[in-house]
Amino acid sequence: MINGRKIILAGTNNYMGMTFDPDAISAAKEALDKFGTGTTGSRILNGTYQGHKALERELEDFYGMDHAMVFSTGYQANLGMISTLAGRGDYVIIDADSHASIYDACAMGNADILRFRHNSVEDLEKRLKRLPENAAKLVVLEGVYSMLGDRAPLAELIAVSKAAGAQVLVDEAHSMGFCGETGRGVAQELGVEDQVDFIVGTFSKSVGTVGGFCLSNHPKFDVLRFACRPYMFTASLPPSVVASAISSIRSLKNAHNKRAHLWANVERLHSGLKDLGFKLGTKSVESPIVAVCFDSQEELFGMCQLLLAEGVYVNVARPPATPMGIYLLRCSLGAGHSVEQVDQILAAFKAAQEKFSASETLRDAAGDKNAADRQSPDAAVATG
Amino acid sequence: MINGRKIILAGTNNYMGMTFDPDAISAAKEALDKFGTGTTGSRILNGTYQGHKALERELEDFYGMDHAMVFSTGYQANLGMISTLAGRGDYVIIDADSHASIYDACAMGNADILRFRHNSVEDLEKRLKRLPENAAKLVVLEGVYSMLGDRAPLAELIAVSKAAGAQVLVDEAHSMGFCGETGRGVAQELGVEDQVDFIVGTFSKSVGTVGGFCLSNHPKFDVLRFACRPYMFTASLPPSVVASAISSIRSLKNAHNKRAHLWANVERLHSGLKDLGFKLGTKSVESPIVAVCFDSQEELFGMCQLLLAEGVYVNVARPPATPMGIYLLRCSLGAGHSVEQVDQILAAFKAAQEKFSASETLRDAAGDKNAADRQSPDAAVATG
Repeated sequence: MINGRKIILAGTNNYMGMTFDPDAISAAKEALDKFGTGTTGSRILNGTYQGHKALERELEDFYGMDHAMVFSTGYQANLGMISTLAGRGDYVIIDADSHASIYDACAMGNADILRFRHNSVEDLEKRLKRLPENAAKLVVLEGVYSMLGDRAPLAELIAVSKAAGAQVLVDEAHSMGFCGETGRGVAQELGVEDQVDFIVGTFSKSVGTVGGFCLSNHPKFDVLRFACRPYMFTASLPPSVVASAISSIRSLKNAHNKRAHLWANVERLHSGLKDLGFKLGTKSVESPIVAVCFDSQEELFGMCQLLLAEGVYVNVARPPATPMGIYLLRCSLGAGHSVEQVDQILAAFKAAQEKFSASETLRDAAGDKNAADRQSPDAAVATG
Repeated sequence: MINGRKIILAGTNNYMGMTFDPDAISAAKEALDKFGTGTTGSRILNGTYQGHKALERELEDFYGMDHAMVFSTGYQANLGMISTLAGRGDYVIIDADSHASIYDACAMGNADILRFRHNSVEDLEKRLKRLPENAAKLVVLEGVYSMLGDRAPLAELIAVSKAAGAQVLVDEAHSMGFCGETGRGVAQELGVEDQVDFIVGTFSKSVGTVGGFCLSNHPKFDVLRFACRPYMFTASLPPSVVASAISSIRSLKNAHNKRAHLWANVERLHSGLKDLGFKLGTKSVESPIVAVCFDSQEELFGMCQLLLAEGVYVNVARPPATPMGIYLLRCSLGAGHSVEQVDQILAAFKAAQEKFSASETLRDAAGDKNAADRQSPDAAVATG
């Protein structure tokens, strides 16, 4: 509902439609009754309840890894992991299109930071080769990049990282739930999980609530609980959020039908938009994010408004969230969308496209008139 | 409940006992039914619901200020405000005992950072005088410092800051709810609110849930919504958390009886511990935090374990959370504690104190025995 009108939300990170999952809601309510509205404490003091530990066991089970740590936001998970793992004299090597939380972690930490060209295996390899052989190196990757919705060539990127003796952290924020056999993300789908040293993720997308996490098989992983400041110095997640997350993660594991439905919807949207002549962020479907590219901010906001008038909300993304000169209508679907809704989204795009072309023509005409006015100072003063 | 035993929690930030407030719980449940378990979006994209705006209006009303911004954690509120307000060429001047989130904000931002001696008006003034007159300066203070529970002399600190042309940010995390006529914090109690440029606070203490906020009367405050990265690039608070926070803030305003009960309890605990001969963090009561100081980590953990055996949980704080050489049992009370519980806490301290002295004597004896063993290598080999 926006201003009292019913709108289709086609710009959501609710990929698995979990925010209205009845089990997740009733788990939250039960936790509210039993444990109250919050812990009022940090994880290392009085903010670790049995639920926080159970959620960490649930994640370990879901990912088949030895150690999990739960953070209060996904932002703080990246911030904490990257700034703590790499210290002075170490190197962090990140993709140029990395999420803001990864850039902010680099700004907060003391390591030297290098960027490689987005998804370029060659560029990553070149930059790694220039680094001192014995220096500690951490390569930070994302399974799916949230702006264009494109996937990382994880197998190749990890191979060159490992060859250079680097550790690898993969953020599966925009791939958990629907990539891989049981929804662990792109690393699972590509069968390279055993090469990943740290998996980072969030509960605010496919899990449908809020919070972040990190997993590792490193035997001394738990040391981070007493070193990682964005984990230590913040209140822990409310028990109700923890209970929802546990419930959702449990059901994600076997959500094969939901995954199939989601991918079919995305295929339908992607090919429909392509048929309408839109320029898309990826040639084929790589994730539930279908980015429609425009050349100017004017075009972007014009289309966004027209779509809203047609009853469809999509997110706009522009610099600095996107690279310079890239203006995106970032559509994203969830398993909660019906096939009919996807068709309604496509119909709205078609209608908006037609109106936009018409208004462009009108504006050109108006533009010509203004230009004429500017050449006639008397007229400008007269109306002015 | 710890390991099946009922324990009195005497180390909580639940100062106003709001975590089990029935209105806050039922508001959360209603929001779960209506809006689901999370927004799955950031505030600037699809994560601003009517509740987030209502919470900001509620805060503006509570503090009597023009503009409020709600963050996903209190940690991110400090991180975002300080790192965004002060940029390259600007100066941030912080108290040496500042919370970790303030230090981390300084690490993330690009400003030059200066520290002044804890609560020293003279040292702050001296440092401000050394700075270029025309440089932008931000002085960051806390109403109550969370480790020792002592208050800042805000009036004097703000006066020297303003004289030097600095802006002032006050974090009322550990003073909101119970300081000042309507619970706004130390600045309200001292009547200096009109001199404060930015108030930062959290929902994870007196408000009883999780999240952070900042308030200001600056007419262009809203510009920060599109500049402050820890606000922009993180999922917004779940609607249930927002609903609890609104409900709690509303009831805090008129919680005069709760405030009186809390202060009476703290007075009782403070004078009781003093009578038992413990060294306390403040001479008289300054906040609901009563810090008991020890000289060594061994003493600290010993007492903590003995107290737990007596049925009382308190938080331990040691470096780096405290300054070097300071080991604290950080007791803190809430309005939810009864007078009887305060007396039970005091009785536990008394019992633990007696046992600790006894065990110290035993350990000395054991130490002597070990020392004797070390002087007799044959004996050591024999016992293997």
